[in-house]
Amino acid sequence: MPTYTPPLDDIRFLLTHVLDANQLSRFPGYEDATTDLMLSVAEEGGRLCAEVIAPLNQIGDAEGCTYDDGKVRTPSGFKAAYDAYCKAGWAAMIAPVEFGGQGLPQLVGTVIDEMLCSANLSFSMYPLLAHGATTAIEKWGDDELKRRYLPRLIDGSWCGTMCLTEPQAGTDLGIIRTRAVPAGDGSYAITGTKIFISAGEHDLTENIIHLVLARLPDAPAGTKGISLFIVPKFLTDEGGKIGKRNGVRCNSIEHKMGIKGNATCVMSFDNAIGWLVGEPHKGMRGMFTMMNAARVSVGMQGLGLAEVAYQNALSYSKDRLQGRAMTGATNPSGDADPIIVHPDVRRMLMTMKAYIEGMRALAYWVGILIDVETRHTDAGARAEAADLVALMTPVIKAFCTDTGFDITNIALQCYGGHGYIREYGMEQFVRDARIAQIYEGTNGVQAMDLLGRKIPDDNGRLARRFAAIVQRDLEAAAKIGTVAPLVAPVADAMSRLQRTTAALLARAAKNPDEIGAAAVDYLHMFGLASIGWMWIRMAVAASALADDDAALRDDKLATARFYVSKLLPQVRALEAQIDAGSDVVMAAALT
Amino acid sequence: MPTYTPPLDDIRFLLTHVLDANQLSRFPGYEDATTDLMLSVAEEGGRLCAEVIAPLNQIGDAEGCTYDDGKVRTPSGFKAAYDAYCKAGWAAMIAPVEFGGQGLPQLVGTVIDEMLCSANLSFSMYPLLAHGATTAIEKWGDDELKRRYLPRLIDGSWCGTMCLTEPQAGTDLGIIRTRAVPAGDGSYAITGTKIFISAGEHDLTENIIHLVLARLPDAPAGTKGISLFIVPKFLTDEGGKIGKRNGVRCNSIEHKMGIKGNATCVMSFDNAIGWLVGEPHKGMRGMFTMMNAARVSVGMQGLGLAEVAYQNALSYSKDRLQGRAMTGATNPSGDADPIIVHPDVRRMLMTMKAYIEGMRALAYWVGILIDVETRHTDAGARAEAADLVALMTPVIKAFCTDTGFDITNIALQCYGGHGYIREYGMEQFVRDARIAQIYEGTNGVQAMDLLGRKIPDDNGRLARRFAAIVQRDLEAAAKIGTVAPLVAPVADAMSRLQRTTAALLARAAKNPDEIGAAAVDYLHMFGLASIGWMWIRMAVAASALADDDAALRDDKLATARFYVSKLLPQVRALEAQIDAGSDVVMAAALT
Repeated sequence: MPTYTPPLDDIRFLLTHVLDANQLSRFPGYEDATTDLMLSVAEEGGRLCAEVIAPLNQIGDAEGCTYDDGKVRTPSGFKAAYDAYCKAGWAAMIAPVEFGGQGLPQLVGTVIDEMLCSANLSFSMYPLLAHGATTAIEKWGDDELKRRYLPRLIDGSWCGTMCLTEPQAGTDLGIIRTRAVPAGDGSYAITGTKIFISAGEHDLTENIIHLVLARLPDAPAGTKGISLFIVPKFLTDEGGKIGKRNGVRCNSIEHKMGIKGNATCVMSFDNAIGWLVGEPHKGMRGMFTMMNAARVSVGMQGLGLAEVAYQNALSYSKDRLQGRAMTGATNPSGDADPIIVHPDVRRMLMTMKAYIEGMRALAYWVGILIDVETRHTDAGARAEAADLVALMTPVIKAFCTDTGFDITNIALQCYGGHGYIREYGMEQFVRDARIAQIYEGTNGVQAMDLLGRKIPDDNGRLARRFAAIVQRDLEAAAKIGTVAPLVAPVADAMSRLQRTTAALLARAAKNPDEIGAAAVDYLHMFGLASIGWMWIRMAVAASALADDDAALRDDKLATARFYVSKLLPQVRALEAQIDAGSDVVMAAALT
Repeated sequence: MPTYTPPLDDIRFLLTHVLDANQLSRFPGYEDATTDLMLSVAEEGGRLCAEVIAPLNQIGDAEGCTYDDGKVRTPSGFKAAYDAYCKAGWAAMIAPVEFGGQGLPQLVGTVIDEMLCSANLSFSMYPLLAHGATTAIEKWGDDELKRRYLPRLIDGSWCGTMCLTEPQAGTDLGIIRTRAVPAGDGSYAITGTKIFISAGEHDLTENIIHLVLARLPDAPAGTKGISLFIVPKFLTDEGGKIGKRNGVRCNSIEHKMGIKGNATCVMSFDNAIGWLVGEPHKGMRGMFTMMNAARVSVGMQGLGLAEVAYQNALSYSKDRLQGRAMTGATNPSGDADPIIVHPDVRRMLMTMKAYIEGMRALAYWVGILIDVETRHTDAGARAEAADLVALMTPVIKAFCTDTGFDITNIALQCYGGHGYIREYGMEQFVRDARIAQIYEGTNGVQAMDLLGRKIPDDNGRLARRFAAIVQRDLEAAAKIGTVAPLVAPVADAMSRLQRTTAALLARAAKNPDEIGAAAVDYLHMFGLASIGWMWIRMAVAASALADDDAALRDDKLATARFYVSKLLPQVRALEAQIDAGSDVVMAAALT
């Protein structure tokens, strides 16, 4: 059975030495959120994840959710763990204080997200969806909706969903058919079928608040005619007391590759009573409020699963005895040496480690930026952070989930045949990780968001802001002796990225297919270069550590060197692949 | 539910226009094996695969094998399909005529292997293991063993296994503990536990012939003290009649990520009666006879699953309507265009297609070489073929299974959320494909075999033979107008490979860890370049097609262009990664 240890040392290194997380305590409302406080929250959350939630992960996979006539039972132990999670205040952690939340920074949410996903991806999705609903209602709902729904979503006694997909409408939400007819009393009658609704029905909470995309009778075609509605499973009175059942029902749950502990539901709405969130026909805005928060969280799913898979592969590689080191036995009294002596096993372990620590740094940096965007006192700083968050959201989502999936597979490979056997738990990480490349917008959609929307926006303003920060950091790093040799490859990757971007946008001006043909390769190139930059920042921070921390310093510098020499070179291939253009992609008949 | 159509057009193109399969009919014993005959065998085998075996694939996954007190029941339909398979003579297809086989060339076996794996990987493994046992007994067994076991293995009434792995000994067979004690009557008493034994117990055949690695009492330590034994499940009399049960028992079956229709058994041998195959302490030779044949077949597992996954992804991409083409609606009367209009979907489809057709060409080329190695009348031709088969075996096994796994994942991605749902069948292909990177020697072991053994062998003789063939083909291709522009990138990849090889071997002379640190990257580089060469051969063949075949010609040329411009550039990254050397791999403490 796999184990999980919260990576508190790495979190501490990032918050303390790399990302200046303490800056958050200078923002209004975050006065208490010092690095020390955030680290102790992480420690406490990590304990819950490791001790209460992780032990349910394999049980959730083996039992799955069970459907019976509209009702869904979650796996054994999920309800008790969810209650413990809410009782200890974790559901309320980053929610607004005025509705009962604890008002901690988004950064803390990102840190806890990662650990929850390492512990139990299926479990983590229940609170994640409640948080998405909270965010949308907080931003777009009127006072009455906020008063009625937020406190219960925030204390965790109610859960939430995002009801977007329909059988004929997944990526293309413009063609959804669910209808919303005004009832005359301010409410609407919602009718339609939604599929792939995570946590659409379950037994963890007394109510479930569905956020549903639907069309009003006078809606224009396409995404400009979509509105967002709240549809509770149970109607409630003024005081929030549960009343009669609403016209929404789970018709079935899907049998899936993984995340079996989370119910993926077909939901049918039959004149269900709902209330409009935000303005008519402006539902996509509300949807994107949920989506953007969720996309960063989904990136953390990739990271979290990568971390737990890596931890177990590392531990297995130290224990499993097979073969002898080429340079002389390290365990001469045993039948064989631990497999960690073999260079190819070390290559796999270092690949995982270098990606994981790099992705964590990048993701936490974005977590801080989300706080800067909402809380900084300077409007210019807020605007810059907003640009960077918009730019990096698809990168975090797609790069961390693509790489996270690859890492779970590398970890499985370290186990050899045992990796393929269920009881060892490695293959569950692979199966669970696979969904994160698909939902909340497939990684192809993320790549189109990056290259088709964020990069060209305002003549490249977002990308220029990012490049300026990287440039400044690389120049400073080049002056530090231990780090200087690593700067040139990262600077080279950044300049290849910039050249490729310019060439691509020039081609795209003549042929819009250039964007789609290059987008996924481009996102990976962008992610690789960004993580290269993060490794420079980490190497700089490590170099400044005192001799007490020599082991950490050496470890970070060695891992940075591995990243720039063994992983970053992929940008050269991606550059050539992007330069090949769209004609080679579009030419074959593909009959 | 997924469908499967045997890729007969592509097989015909390869056998007829690219690989001169008709040469086999000039070898003694293969006089009937004309291309026409082989194609009609492929057509008939393909029909059985598509109509009888493929429909059992999802059933096998859903039901799995069932264990009850030493007995294993295969999924519904497997027994009837296996009987039909044997009755039609497929088990005997490439087996020697003198023991009841049909004596068809190995090439036909490779072609049928691919189709069986596309249809149902779990099913395909039962005959595969019988074939492995047949090969080992044919090569190393004495006349009595051949007479007693081969006819029944060849007609399929008995099945076989390879009992190598033990709990403490997987990759490292030198530390196996199973003992074989001479009984004085020419037989041996075998005692020990073997794990991960595919098809170790089942209900398809009346007997199961285990080929077991064990140590004799006077065995030297390590792999030089391992002997190979035949241990039948049931003892038999002179006439092959089933007698009493031998001391071998299945103790349990594993719960696995995939290949659930094939029983993976823990086998316990308790003074089981066995007979020595070959000489004492020389069992590794016999094991490698099975292994090498099996490794090419496992490569076909990667190819076969890639093919069926691609076929379904292509079909889904033509049917699923989402979004609009950037260059104008192609289905204006519908709600949306088929997703195949989107460049990123086409990128995924073309990636799959270019790899699959390239891997198929390379694998069939090796299939022919195996026939040349055994049947050519010229000793020099046989020796050259033996070298090339030895060189390419790890490449076929590892490259086709790594890439095959990636392709099943790309195919799943084309389905979006539906890919994650079991009923669509795509996620089963992913789960089934994952094992092929692990068994018959992990892909890391294959890479060590290539770079640590085959490449340096006799000062690079094997690689020089290969390079000479490629060089000759590239020079000829450069003179053909339509192909010439593709030659330069492939020649560049080959020269990067040669430079990298020389530099690597020079470093390895000083530090043996250089081999292990580079091996997996090297194997991928080798595979990418080899397939680049095959695309040149295919492009040359396509260019020579008559105008009747214009669609095929254009398709092959477009796919070749895609390969060299969008996939082959990965060699640049791999080259840099290999050049980085082993120090960066070995430096970190990895505590």
